[in-house]
Amino acid sequence: MLEYAEEIASPSRKREPIVSARGHEHSGLAAAMPFLVLGAIAIVGIFIPVVADFSGQPAYQTADIVWMLIASALVLLMTPGLSFFYGGMVSKKNVISTMLQSFIATGLMSVLWVVCGFSLAFGTSWHGLIGNPLSYAFFHGINGHAPTLGVNGQIVLTIPLLLYALFQMKFAIITPALVVGATAERIRFTAYVLFMILFSLFVYAPLAHWAWHPDGILYKLGVLDFAGGTVVHISAGCAALAGALVLKPRKVHQYGEPTKPARITYVLLGTGLLWFGWFGFNAGSALTASSLAVSAFATTNTASAAAGLAWIFFDAMRGRKPSALGFCIGAVVGLVAITPAAGYVGIPQSIFIGFAAAVISNLAVHWKSKTSIDDTLDVFPCHGLGGIVGMILTGVFASKKINPAGNDGLWYGGTSFFLHQLLGMCIAVVYAFCVSWLLFKLINWIYPLRVKEEDEEVGLDISQHDESL
Amino acid sequence: MLEYAEEIASPSRKREPIVSARGHEHSGLAAAMPFLVLGAIAIVGIFIPVVADFSGQPAYQTADIVWMLIASALVLLMTPGLSFFYGGMVSKKNVISTMLQSFIATGLMSVLWVVCGFSLAFGTSWHGLIGNPLSYAFFHGINGHAPTLGVNGQIVLTIPLLLYALFQMKFAIITPALVVGATAERIRFTAYVLFMILFSLFVYAPLAHWAWHPDGILYKLGVLDFAGGTVVHISAGCAALAGALVLKPRKVHQYGEPTKPARITYVLLGTGLLWFGWFGFNAGSALTASSLAVSAFATTNTASAAAGLAWIFFDAMRGRKPSALGFCIGAVVGLVAITPAAGYVGIPQSIFIGFAAAVISNLAVHWKSKTSIDDTLDVFPCHGLGGIVGMILTGVFASKKINPAGNDGLWYGGTSFFLHQLLGMCIAVVYAFCVSWLLFKLINWIYPLRVKEEDEEVGLDISQHDESL
Amino acid sequence: MLEYAEEIASPSRKREPIVSARGHEHSGLAAAMPFLVLGAIAIVGIFIPVVADFSGQPAYQTADIVWMLIASALVLLMTPGLSFFYGGMVSKKNVISTMLQSFIATGLMSVLWVVCGFSLAFGTSWHGLIGNPLSYAFFHGINGHAPTLGVNGQIVLTIPLLLYALFQMKFAIITPALVVGATAERIRFTAYVLFMILFSLFVYAPLAHWAWHPDGILYKLGVLDFAGGTVVHISAGCAALAGALVLKPRKVHQYGEPTKPARITYVLLGTGLLWFGWFGFNAGSALTASSLAVSAFATTNTASAAAGLAWIFFDAMRGRKPSALGFCIGAVVGLVAITPAAGYVGIPQSIFIGFAAAVISNLAVHWKSKTSIDDTLDVFPCHGLGGIVGMILTGVFASKKINPAGNDGLWYGGTSFFLHQLLGMCIAVVYAFCVSWLLFKLINWIYPLRVKEEDEEVGLDISQHDESL
Repeated sequence: MLEYAEEIASPSRKREPIVSARGHEHSGLAAAMPFLVLGAIAIVGIFIPVVADFSGQPAYQTADIVWMLIASALVLLMTPGLSFFYGGMVSKKNVISTMLQSFIATGLMSVLWVVCGFSLAFGTSWHGLIGNPLSYAFFHGINGHAPTLGVNGQIVLTIPLLLYALFQMKFAIITPALVVGATAERIRFTAYVLFMILFSLFVYAPLAHWAWHPDGILYKLGVLDFAGGTVVHISAGCAALAGALVLKPRKVHQYGEPTKPARITYVLLGTGLLWFGWFGFNAGSALTASSLAVSAFATTNTASAAAGLAWIFFDAMRGRKPSALGFCIGAVVGLVAITPAAGYVGIPQSIFIGFAAAVISNLAVHWKSKTSIDDTLDVFPCHGLGGIVGMILTGVFASKKINPAGNDGLWYGGTSFFLHQLLGMCIAVVYAFCVSWLLFKLINWIYPLRVKEEDEEVGLDISQHDESL
Repeated sequence: MLEYAEEIASPSRKREPIVSARGHEHSGLAAAMPFLVLGAIAIVGIFIPVVADFSGQPAYQTADIVWMLIASALVLLMTPGLSFFYGGMVSKKNVISTMLQSFIATGLMSVLWVVCGFSLAFGTSWHGLIGNPLSYAFFHGINGHAPTLGVNGQIVLTIPLLLYALFQMKFAIITPALVVGATAERIRFTAYVLFMILFSLFVYAPLAHWAWHPDGILYKLGVLDFAGGTVVHISAGCAALAGALVLKPRKVHQYGEPTKPARITYVLLGTGLLWFGWFGFNAGSALTASSLAVSAFATTNTASAAAGLAWIFFDAMRGRKPSALGFCIGAVVGLVAITPAAGYVGIPQSIFIGFAAAVISNLAVHWKSKTSIDDTLDVFPCHGLGGIVGMILTGVFASKKINPAGNDGLWYGGTSFFLHQLLGMCIAVVYAFCVSWLLFKLINWIYPLRVKEEDEEVGLDISQHDESL
Repeated sequence: MLEYAEEIASPSRKREPIVSARGHEHSGLAAAMPFLVLGAIAIVGIFIPVVADFSGQPAYQTADIVWMLIASALVLLMTPGLSFFYGGMVSKKNVISTMLQSFIATGLMSVLWVVCGFSLAFGTSWHGLIGNPLSYAFFHGINGHAPTLGVNGQIVLTIPLLLYALFQMKFAIITPALVVGATAERIRFTAYVLFMILFSLFVYAPLAHWAWHPDGILYKLGVLDFAGGTVVHISAGCAALAGALVLKPRKVHQYGEPTKPARITYVLLGTGLLWFGWFGFNAGSALTASSLAVSAFATTNTASAAAGLAWIFFDAMRGRKPSALGFCIGAVVGLVAITPAAGYVGIPQSIFIGFAAAVISNLAVHWKSKTSIDDTLDVFPCHGLGGIVGMILTGVFASKKINPAGNDGLWYGGTSFFLHQLLGMCIAVVYAFCVSWLLFKLINWIYPLRVKEEDEEVGLDISQHDESL
């Protein structure tokens, strides 16, 4: 895509024709391609007819509209928050590139979601596997659509369908942005951009369809995923692992040099913004301004707090100094783990969920650091495992008393539901890992995923973007 | 105003009497003036009688109150966001001064708006040109006022008039703060403070009155400006151009030295906060928690995303490296361009608006960099042009199906409306540029706008504020 | 607690057994203690039975639920904001430690509040002095509780009691985090953690009970504290003074070396986030989406603006340069001072409150800098005095016209109320200072509060956390 542009941008390098891994020459057309495609989308958009608003305004609850407007804004803010969370942890020469790689998801995924993403995830279902990409292509007619989902209108919303699509858009934005952490410091910018697009189409959209569309296979199986334990965190975590494996370790990792985090203050800022935004993510997933939203807000906060503390207290017990980094990572792991459970479990139980997830991820991070897998910022042990633990514990602690639309978990006697929950989780893990692995391999086959050795040495900020901290 | 204080503050300099451009000596009184004026305002305030709340509570919709409370808070956050957006782009020795110059608008404009700004903009109209400055001086009686605007109560709100005044206050804050980008790295702090006050009284308040007061001349002309394309962005962009012309180029610009942006991470942070806050700016301008707010939210997000991508894809096509700076600037240009259109156009059309604005501003920035005009951070090409493009495309793509209170644009057959829109836009451009130019000239005549040559060399952070990054 | 862990974490130091001030050896058990306690809490939580939601949903107003969800999220964001506000002001070698000390309150206080904090503050009252710690231990049954407070249900809410508890939780988080500013650059991390827990139990919870519980002694006395002038700011300010006295001055302070603030940009960011979040703090304290919330929003913004300007204008009058730091500190002082008054006074009067508080705190900061008291970041002159000024001026300018649930202040003839207000304020000052002093002394007796001399020299970032900016 952009590779030619990147190559020739630096005036100090000669303008040699680029030869891809498959031996084809890249022409100026390749550099112009993204612009031309976007331009085509922009022009097609003009011709989409405008429709009048859905007339059934009485179907709406204005308080729910407010709540979901804010929740959508909050979830958008999480992606800049994430870019600070990640950017602060990489080495100084890779801060901007890491941040841009996640930040740019706000642009890419917003457009993609309008064009066909929402349709794939929430359009008319094809055997519970995927939505019809034309259902809401270019969001056409969506503001005139009754606030229902599913071919028989199984899910009735109290907010415009457009607002639901916007809220879901923010989830679609942050998920591929999460993967960045695993491939940071060595992935080519253009390759990552391409991965995000393909991941969104082939991994994210199907998983969202399965778990949240009323005709989706996991939904029908009774799998509970309140705010994205599978759809967001397991999918990102498994893609991260696949990316790390395909990309191979960074040079510094091979030599065993530890990376000094560039700016721990950025990690603190990112954590603050993530925590703040996560209230929109989890409590917003109630889709109404109700006591269910309040309950999800409470469990979110408690699990995060308990996990942050558990991480540094566990460190302290094992003879490490309590660190700002540790508290931040722990808090985020807690947020991840409570995500699928937020609206199904009680507050006292949420302490345990945060606590357990932090200990497991902490152990996994330290265990992983002894392997040759180079998941730069521990996306799999934190998001992947955090999501898995969250899904399992949702299967354990969910209660119909908290959410009548849910189910009773193992702790309250619901063995069958628990086994379905496990099955659903396993399907998501296998699917997300395998397809992501194939996508990374495919992109690598078209054009190398990794930057050149000397570019990695110089750092991606300068070599990919001519910018520096 | 503060000039004497500034001069004598640095203990290393001798306390010489200051001689102004007009040859008068500045006494200690000049340094005390701002404090004394503020003190007088504070004391006058005590004597304003308190009134009971408007009794017609049934007129209010509580969901709308919540939405506008949040929207107001979101728009406030944009000014700190802007100061990071700008502060990250200037050179290292001017970061704090640039940030403070925009940040301080939160203080100056809040007080000014309460004292007389809101009255000038939304008080009883004098021939559609300006409001009566005493209508709501010191916000007296505003909480007891029925929620209506216009002498015949043409506009009926569902929120307290006070809340409307607060929401509008945040717009009045950010507009002069936007101008900072053009005059950064060489303007005297006190001169800029004075400019902001005069600009607010003589440019911002009249434009807001014309466009948004039901008796205003542009409002009556049928000009559509949903959230401030003229009032905020054209006015700031044209003032910026005037400021750059009056101030003349920075030394570094004259020598053709490029400025290395001090902290690109700050630009990313600023962009994140601006994007987040802009939902309040645009979707809040619906003034209700309705599907119109949802629609404005959607077009805002889509235009911004498309513009950010268009900027870097266009760069790539032209052989430049995709950069974090480019994505951020593009995204902000998209936000600017969609501002007047947000509640009038469809979502598919908003992609085009963002795309077109980004390409035009990108070309203008590169074209401008070859001229001798030194608009430090490209405020005119980004905000001025972005606002102009947005106003024109509102005239093209507005549709009564999206907003029955609007009009059908050129694309839907509305030629007459389109011409009115162009006329309104031109009036705003000419007025904002000319008056701002006069104000800058006036201030310069009283006392030099520019810092001394050696202060510019040292950087404004140290020379104006004794602070540094 | 964590001291052993801290000591042994640095691989360059030998693992000597630690000897506490009282001569006991610290075993590995001490290092494991926090983790074990948290683990015990997590496990106990599992066994708390889940209850069904309160059935009286008609009691709720959904718009109020939305507003308080957001307000709670906004107040949470203040603590990260505060950590940037403080972190930017300390010296470069203490940035992370200062930030973590306040940031970690989000974890500690969240868990503590769930376990027993909320019960102590808002549980069944024991003679108006303290709540029953078992009333809502582990938040059990809180989601099934009717939305009332007080044994006779004196206060009826329109939001779930759980949401009220969450909103209050955020106040409980930020209060001990405020104290950090006074003890920064020399306090041991583990000692501070311990202080926060004890302060929360023995100072914060009682004060909250007295002022805000319908059976509390200050509440019954008719003392008005809208959003925490006593409970938050006086308590934190007085604790800060106590901490500074017990800890004794920093080395650098003894030698009279001024500290160069590490990152003024962080102070600007922190101020922006605090201002934004304070809308939740003050306007949220209306507990409803009403015109009272709007009024509190307005006074908050105005007082902050006036105070920020007053600070730098006063500086300018006294021959100092206007500084970003000055504007930020002034704005925060204004926010502090308006806190108890926000929902009781008129907007014109709020200008005076901000103005007066800024001048008084400004004078106090400069006076204090000549004493030997080393309150590192001026928490007492800013928060303590700001809170005191705010409480007094609430007693002066409160009006029943603004808030019928309030009272008429001295300016409107309410002498008796004014005297009660003074009395309440004095009780809070004395109680908060004395108990905090005892707590600091107690902790110091168990184990030294201060880091070792060489650790202070190196900076707390490296010596306590092995991290650096």
